Amino acid sequence: MSKIHENHREDVAGRANVEDTPELLAYYDDLAKLQAGALWTVANKIEPWQPKSQSVPVVWRYDDLRAHVLRSVELVTPEKAGRRVIYLNNPGRQDVSAAVGWLYAGLQVMNPGEKAGAHRHSASAVRFIMEGSGAYTVVDGHKMTLGRNDFVLTPNGTWHEHAVDPDGTPCIWQDGLDIPFVNAMEANFYEVHPNGTEPVAFPVDDMTKTWGNPGLRPSADWSKPYSPMFKYEWGPTYAALLKYAESSEGSVFDGHLLEYVNPATNGPVMPTMGASMQRLAPGLHTRAHRHTGSYLYHCAKGSGHSIIDGKRFDWSERDIFCVPSWAWHEHVNGSDSEDAVLFCLSDLPVMRALGLYREQAYAENDGYQPLV
Amino acid sequence: MSKIHENHREDVAGRANVEDTPELLAYYDDLAKLQAGALWTVANKIEPWQPKSQSVPVVWRYDDLRAHVLRSVELVTPEKAGRRVIYLNNPGRQDVSAAVGWLYAGLQVMNPGEKAGAHRHSASAVRFIMEGSGAYTVVDGHKMTLGRNDFVLTPNGTWHEHAVDPDGTPCIWQDGLDIPFVNAMEANFYEVHPNGTEPVAFPVDDMTKTWGNPGLRPSADWSKPYSPMFKYEWGPTYAALLKYAESSEGSVFDGHLLEYVNPATNGPVMPTMGASMQRLAPGLHTRAHRHTGSYLYHCAKGSGHSIIDGKRFDWSERDIFCVPSWAWHEHVNGSDSEDAVLFCLSDLPVMRALGLYREQAYAENDGYQPLV
Amino acid sequence: MSKIHENHREDVAGRANVEDTPELLAYYDDLAKLQAGALWTVANKIEPWQPKSQSVPVVWRYDDLRAHVLRSVELVTPEKAGRRVIYLNNPGRQDVSAAVGWLYAGLQVMNPGEKAGAHRHSASAVRFIMEGSGAYTVVDGHKMTLGRNDFVLTPNGTWHEHAVDPDGTPCIWQDGLDIPFVNAMEANFYEVHPNGTEPVAFPVDDMTKTWGNPGLRPSADWSKPYSPMFKYEWGPTYAALLKYAESSEGSVFDGHLLEYVNPATNGPVMPTMGASMQRLAPGLHTRAHRHTGSYLYHCAKGSGHSIIDGKRFDWSERDIFCVPSWAWHEHVNGSDSEDAVLFCLSDLPVMRALGLYREQAYAENDGYQPLV
Amino acid sequence: MSKIHENHREDVAGRANVEDTPELLAYYDDLAKLQAGALWTVANKIEPWQPKSQSVPVVWRYDDLRAHVLRSVELVTPEKAGRRVIYLNNPGRQDVSAAVGWLYAGLQVMNPGEKAGAHRHSASAVRFIMEGSGAYTVVDGHKMTLGRNDFVLTPNGTWHEHAVDPDGTPCIWQDGLDIPFVNAMEANFYEVHPNGTEPVAFPVDDMTKTWGNPGLRPSADWSKPYSPMFKYEWGPTYAALLKYAESSEGSVFDGHLLEYVNPATNGPVMPTMGASMQRLAPGLHTRAHRHTGSYLYHCAKGSGHSIIDGKRFDWSERDIFCVPSWAWHEHVNGSDSEDAVLFCLSDLPVMRALGLYREQAYAENDGYQPLV
Repeated sequence: MSKIHENHREDVAGRANVEDTPELLAYYDDLAKLQAGALWTVANKIEPWQPKSQSVPVVWRYDDLRAHVLRSVELVTPEKAGRRVIYLNNPGRQDVSAAVGWLYAGLQVMNPGEKAGAHRHSASAVRFIMEGSGAYTVVDGHKMTLGRNDFVLTPNGTWHEHAVDPDGTPCIWQDGLDIPFVNAMEANFYEVHPNGTEPVAFPVDDMTKTWGNPGLRPSADWSKPYSPMFKYEWGPTYAALLKYAESSEGSVFDGHLLEYVNPATNGPVMPTMGASMQRLAPGLHTRAHRHTGSYLYHCAKGSGHSIIDGKRFDWSERDIFCVPSWAWHEHVNGSDSEDAVLFCLSDLPVMRALGLYREQAYAENDGYQPLV
Repeated sequence: MSKIHENHREDVAGRANVEDTPELLAYYDDLAKLQAGALWTVANKIEPWQPKSQSVPVVWRYDDLRAHVLRSVELVTPEKAGRRVIYLNNPGRQDVSAAVGWLYAGLQVMNPGEKAGAHRHSASAVRFIMEGSGAYTVVDGHKMTLGRNDFVLTPNGTWHEHAVDPDGTPCIWQDGLDIPFVNAMEANFYEVHPNGTEPVAFPVDDMTKTWGNPGLRPSADWSKPYSPMFKYEWGPTYAALLKYAESSEGSVFDGHLLEYVNPATNGPVMPTMGASMQRLAPGLHTRAHRHTGSYLYHCAKGSGHSIIDGKRFDWSERDIFCVPSWAWHEHVNGSDSEDAVLFCLSDLPVMRALGLYREQAYAENDGYQPLV
Repeated sequence: MSKIHENHREDVAGRANVEDTPELLAYYDDLAKLQAGALWTVANKIEPWQPKSQSVPVVWRYDDLRAHVLRSVELVTPEKAGRRVIYLNNPGRQDVSAAVGWLYAGLQVMNPGEKAGAHRHSASAVRFIMEGSGAYTVVDGHKMTLGRNDFVLTPNGTWHEHAVDPDGTPCIWQDGLDIPFVNAMEANFYEVHPNGTEPVAFPVDDMTKTWGNPGLRPSADWSKPYSPMFKYEWGPTYAALLKYAESSEGSVFDGHLLEYVNPATNGPVMPTMGASMQRLAPGLHTRAHRHTGSYLYHCAKGSGHSIIDGKRFDWSERDIFCVPSWAWHEHVNGSDSEDAVLFCLSDLPVMRALGLYREQAYAENDGYQPLV
Repeated sequence: MSKIHENHREDVAGRANVEDTPELLAYYDDLAKLQAGALWTVANKIEPWQPKSQSVPVVWRYDDLRAHVLRSVELVTPEKAGRRVIYLNNPGRQDVSAAVGWLYAGLQVMNPGEKAGAHRHSASAVRFIMEGSGAYTVVDGHKMTLGRNDFVLTPNGTWHEHAVDPDGTPCIWQDGLDIPFVNAMEANFYEVHPNGTEPVAFPVDDMTKTWGNPGLRPSADWSKPYSPMFKYEWGPTYAALLKYAESSEGSVFDGHLLEYVNPATNGPVMPTMGASMQRLAPGLHTRAHRHTGSYLYHCAKGSGHSIIDGKRFDWSERDIFCVPSWAWHEHVNGSDSEDAVLFCLSDLPVMRALGLYREQAYAENDGYQPLV
């Protein structure tokens, strides 16, 4: 008796539409024994007309999560837990623990005087600081002090450790990693530092002071595939958004958006993950578009809402929400007087490097989606 | 009552090792309601010490498959099936219809006088011709005549159609596509040509005649992300292997290996898939190594065997076998008088572009794996 | 009778050393009639053992020149003179009106309310502002307001015009151009704007506000071969030098040196000319080295001296001096309390792009030249 | 009394037109003492409306030169002369011993069994083989055998030596170097090999066998700024021209032109000099155009004439002629049955790298120059 074979038929010219027959089912059995199958049974499944993301739009409200994050401090020790992190678990991506697409994200909390042991992995990571004082990160011996809305890199293969100064306050930040992607590519390696820690070997914040100067290059060489500017501070970033807004009309889809880049190449900060910060002027309602790639937004300032595939998602400062691949989306700053600023983490560098980026403007209704 | 939560514990410093308690289980329930989870329950799962591929090594023997491929001609019509293809279905990758990793492969057959309708998709494709005469492919109006062991590209976004001349013979070729990968990236689009066919608009084989000249560049510009040399013929490729073998010792892991490249950049032929042709001198037994990425070999000439993760896989002309990511492998030319030549399709360009390529030589036993 | 033929003989193995004979002189006559010559007569001349620059080290003191610059305002009208500029005329380069090597430099003065007509040329230009308020430059419709020590580009092929606001003061700046080089390459084109002026078409200072943000890229594309950041202001540049000095030891030859770069590529601001700003800490005495390329220094702050090929050249604020190709040089900040800052214009991008850059440290005497 | 000052006046709006006065002449005297001058006296000279080359078009006929080249063997020894070379001396460039622009060229002769001592220099060189058998060149230990119309590189900084096998025949080749340019850039270094010779360390012709394969890259890395394919043979080059001619219409200005490129980058073979080979179909008369850069043609096959700035220059096999920068030119194959092939050496890579390339089609008279 034949085993059960899937068969995805479509009655469209150029698409597979083969009826199961006893003869064919027997044939499929034979192929299965040879680790093979008939393409026409699965062709319509594996060659869809357009992408349909497995991820669903979600907004994670900081008001909901913050208490749970803080509670983890009481529930588990750093020694047992490694890190006290609540991760964002997209209902469509629970098998790979992703927030959206192949991106992992979590909220990590650390108390003053605590320090996570140094380690490294093939996954690349970013931190985006949410609250607290005294946090710092050490990447390959470069120590970076961290404040609210600062953006920090811990690239593929670098030794890194996170800590909070004894005279600081409890700190919470968002972690973002490409762990699910690197696992999918079957290329993830993990190593605990043999000494538990990597000593600070350079002046504090040296990489940002050396590389974070507009239109100016130090005499140092840099050929690694990630940015030497490990920390991007909120102050100059927000100032840049305001200057940019003075001098350009911005994008109808994104307002004034600046991409964080590797100053040695003007390319993405890391090959697998990119980030941007965008300002929505008071009252701005952007037009809808959709594009490939997975996007995780974090409201750094202000409040508003986004309409994703026709559904409204409200957000305010510290909330996180995702836009799956090829989902229509538009953003609205809910205030008529204050600007709203969105940090966004994505796999856009992957989509661009591999020629998989595609974009489409919403053509109807003056470019605005009707709510469903 | 608590739902069931996974919990992956390891008793190693720096790894998560938190025991389930009623309090924690209730906490996990609360987190799940907020589309969140505790990282320490899954950290060890998603941060493995090293890659463990879901694919298993397989050899697909042409002797086994050829009859089934030919039988598809009797079983289904091109109109109903779209294309008559038997695809290679790795036991570990049946959910995504992949031969290895995120690579799809199939054996396609076409009779003289047949022609598949023009279409295009975001997936990139290659063909490697196995037998028959009169096959040709048209890519964006460029017609290419195809012979045994010729390698042809149909890149992301190009209109393409395959056919066999009425005065040819039944033709079989291997298709290779990144369909599973592009689906995983949620970036696949599919389109049937509105007219069913794309007319030939250039002299036959013009792109290979124009771009396939050693150290010589035509006056034409080319800025597309894939190679303008759509066809790489077996004749000059094999001649090049012989010349290369005269002038270089080759690699201890791969013998004399030449990578197919985009002559406009010297980079990979397409951003998502690469290919190479390698010659194993008579009697050669390469040393074992392993690296990240997924590899699908096709024996173009000769015979021999490969040892993959300690297990021997014999192959001869037209057989196909795979080496999963991070699997140890070594190749042996079984003949003392004839050379053996392996064509290899892989996602190496992705691994390199994203900084995920890693390689390791087998250190023990003089570099040769013991058979298990 | 034979015409006179040059003959450069050297009595060294591998060098030409052929004595003139009547037979050879007659032979040289025959060759000359065919627009040809015998290589051995000129080989030693055209293949020197190492470069010997035609330029000589010069310091142009602002105290000497300023009055003459201002006097030009009385002596000639803008209508007759085009621009009122006193150019720096290296004694070894008077045939090409160069300050050093193939670089032209001049001091230009403009009164409030004056405006030079728009023009464009294949030569690339920079301005470095020395004194006065109200100066501005318009490049392809982008208006830039200019202050002391600001560095401005008017690249190859851009329409540009210079002016001083009616409510400003007389302004003096240094012009730097590659005119001699572009003439030598026989590639110079000059055009007067058909309307005499190019209207301002963008917000004031938009290019610096858009592109001059550290580690942040606007959504705009830029593929021209020069920097989109047309103006580099003194404020952030000096601040960057101080930050850089906090985080790096700097170079033993140059102290803390930052190169002005095209933020879209991290390469030079223009293909033919580059610039840098370097800080010499109080009391610093750099070690001597020499390298190919032609360099024109301008003291932006402080005072000190340089030793060039063993000779001392004192400089203070606003003085300009040159270092010819392959000349030994070292710099000394003469103050123990104030820093000294040197702006430097050079053809380093040419030397690097063409593989002609070579550098050598002074090996003897602990790296310091004896004064001659 | 005033010294004599040049003064280039033009009566055109936007150009300098200042009359000499006693006051101004005294002022110019004062400036001269300060190593300075008034720009308006030289501005019109150094900012021409368009390039006017110092080089003049010349054709050097092989029939005229060959006997003189051979006679040098009798007149001078290799020991005394270094190399027996007759160089091409453009009447407009005798001060720098250039054939055209900043390019040096010569005809070198060598007898069987002779060998020139190994040396290296910052100037880059090419050889183009004209006649004889048994010639070879060794570049950094790579030996290349040379035949008629083969094109060989000896890049900046490589040890190289030329020789003819004892069982060969007298060989003549064209040398092409950027000596005048590298001297003008004050960056030329010259070194005689300490041992007089650099031993052959690789299989004969290994670099061409390794790198000269169409669309195929060896496993070797290459990051030097010049081509690893040191020799480009006539056979595959001419075959490529014929294939190219089958598949493309070619250029109206150049027929079918293939540029020699570095296969590791698809860029020029060396940063300072490039070369091309172009085929003029029987009877072809190309349209006139002009562009910046200096070009030295060598007829490799066939015969015909070129019209340069309205004047006809006939050429046949082995003749050499030059086209100066911005000179109008068109080529005519004089035969209705045989093709004509022109090798061309130029500084085009410099013009392109530095943004100085400009091109213009001849607009009148259907694109053909009237003869003057």
